[in-house]
Amino acid sequence: MSFTLTILGSSSAIPTTKRFPTAQLLNVDERFFLIDCGEGTQIQLNRFKLRFARINHIFISHLHGDHIFGLFGLISTLSLMGRTSDLHIYAESRLGEILKNHLGYFGEELPFRINFIPIVPSKSKLIYEDDKLTVTTIPLKHRVPVCGFLFREKPKPMNITREAIIRYSIPVKQIPLIKAGADFTDDSGRVIPNAALTMNRFRQRSYAFITDTRMLEKNAALLQQVDLLYHEATFLDKDRKLAHQTFHSTASEAAQFARKCNAGKLLLGHFSVRYKSTAPFQDEARAIFPESYVVEDGESYSVELRRETHHEG
Amino acid sequence: MSFTLTILGSSSAIPTTKRFPTAQLLNVDERFFLIDCGEGTQIQLNRFKLRFARINHIFISHLHGDHIFGLFGLISTLSLMGRTSDLHIYAESRLGEILKNHLGYFGEELPFRINFIPIVPSKSKLIYEDDKLTVTTIPLKHRVPVCGFLFREKPKPMNITREAIIRYSIPVKQIPLIKAGADFTDDSGRVIPNAALTMNRFRQRSYAFITDTRMLEKNAALLQQVDLLYHEATFLDKDRKLAHQTFHSTASEAAQFARKCNAGKLLLGHFSVRYKSTAPFQDEARAIFPESYVVEDGESYSVELRRETHHEG
Repeated sequence: MSFTLTILGSSSAIPTTKRFPTAQLLNVDERFFLIDCGEGTQIQLNRFKLRFARINHIFISHLHGDHIFGLFGLISTLSLMGRTSDLHIYAESRLGEILKNHLGYFGEELPFRINFIPIVPSKSKLIYEDDKLTVTTIPLKHRVPVCGFLFREKPKPMNITREAIIRYSIPVKQIPLIKAGADFTDDSGRVIPNAALTMNRFRQRSYAFITDTRMLEKNAALLQQVDLLYHEATFLDKDRKLAHQTFHSTASEAAQFARKCNAGKLLLGHFSVRYKSTAPFQDEARAIFPESYVVEDGESYSVELRRETHHEG
Repeated sequence: MSFTLTILGSSSAIPTTKRFPTAQLLNVDERFFLIDCGEGTQIQLNRFKLRFARINHIFISHLHGDHIFGLFGLISTLSLMGRTSDLHIYAESRLGEILKNHLGYFGEELPFRINFIPIVPSKSKLIYEDDKLTVTTIPLKHRVPVCGFLFREKPKPMNITREAIIRYSIPVKQIPLIKAGADFTDDSGRVIPNAALTMNRFRQRSYAFITDTRMLEKNAALLQQVDLLYHEATFLDKDRKLAHQTFHSTASEAAQFARKCNAGKLLLGHFSVRYKSTAPFQDEARAIFPESYVVEDGESYSVELRRETHHEG
């Protein structure tokens, strides 16, 4: 029951020896979602021993090279590895044209289909849904159209307790109803409330990816209680002017945003190469939001499966 | 007076953690020539502390992704670093279209000009010349049009000896003539032959890059006495059939070719990921051509400046 984010690249536009351009992999119960795909993403997936043949969905925040130039090599390698299942790519519509051009030159023998799903970055919209998860876009503000992504588990069914089944002799066919929230009426007509039969629900775990943007406080309403929040911090607060001019954020702004969201943990990345050390980013953010972390390529951050503290049957 | 090749990437189509896709940097007297540009080339240049802002010429052997997908990121980073001087890219004409498409999406603010020079891979032709060096294409045979490149120093001027100048009281204005090969006639009418005045010439150093091809013996005539020869060796000889089917070479074939060329040193790369170890490649090649070396990313190979053993004034 994993919910684990692995950082594949955490540099800003110019990569360094230690930080590749932006890419992340989210593992939700062994379903793998790639978020952005900077140059060298396939190399990082290899390095960190991640099974990238199992990636079926790729979400691209915006069309700057440091967030997409790894797509071409990844597609090529998936092809050479004999992939046959569809690959779904979600991005602003122009990436569809770019991919079409690209495949015109390099896609002749592609043994799998690329299913391109255009997204409109300016609106918050549900763009992906399966039985366990939804993905919603979060509108951002940069020099080109850009959006973030909120990954959120769907509510899990109630767990009925073994003790309740025995104590009240609950028939098997009643169990799905109770899991869905129903009370139980026994043979004598006594009503046992759902809360006495079930454990608190598991929390819906969530991850939000916010990059290449001015900090936008209004988005905090969309991300309340998010467990894990990645927010770009290209600059330190002393360079706030530059951040504003280039439509980026500072570590302080990222921390203020995390506080507004009541986030569980803030991950900081996308650091400008102008800074020799990233330690000041962590210090600056922690002064505002103590649960702030400067990420490194290869690190993983997991959200534990926990039950709600209140029963909401 | 360097003549140094650095291996930036030596994998075949699928990169590994240790081997990036094909790219090499040739430094001829501090002029830097990039040969192929697989994904991650800019990261490798960084890792090996090479000053890639000084690359002015890029030679692309063929249009398979593992030889070109690093171009986009490299162009982007050169732009962010504020490059203003022209960048010259030599490749088959379709790369011109691909770059044009690409720059239509990503090249808006490019502060330098890309000068694309189309080459015809099927003919051996001089494609570059400066005061010190020529570059000639070498036709190869793969599933798509492909050529290798021969980098060869131009003849260097003679060096006149200090002793000759003193002994024969040679006037300054005669020196350029003697350096160009003339004899010297002194005031008494005595003719001193050029060979008595000058040292043996420096050898013209050379490097040949041969990749993604069936081994073509006939090319050995174009590469006689080449100092440094890189030849792909995607397969071992036991998989010769597969090599032939996929238009690649084996380590044995590369060694046979090096022997035909009377090469100084053979460098082997482009190994298929099917092999766990590269040691057998070196063993197999050395049985035929002892000066064979399996290359690793980050290694450099230099050709020393040496004088001819015979005077050819």
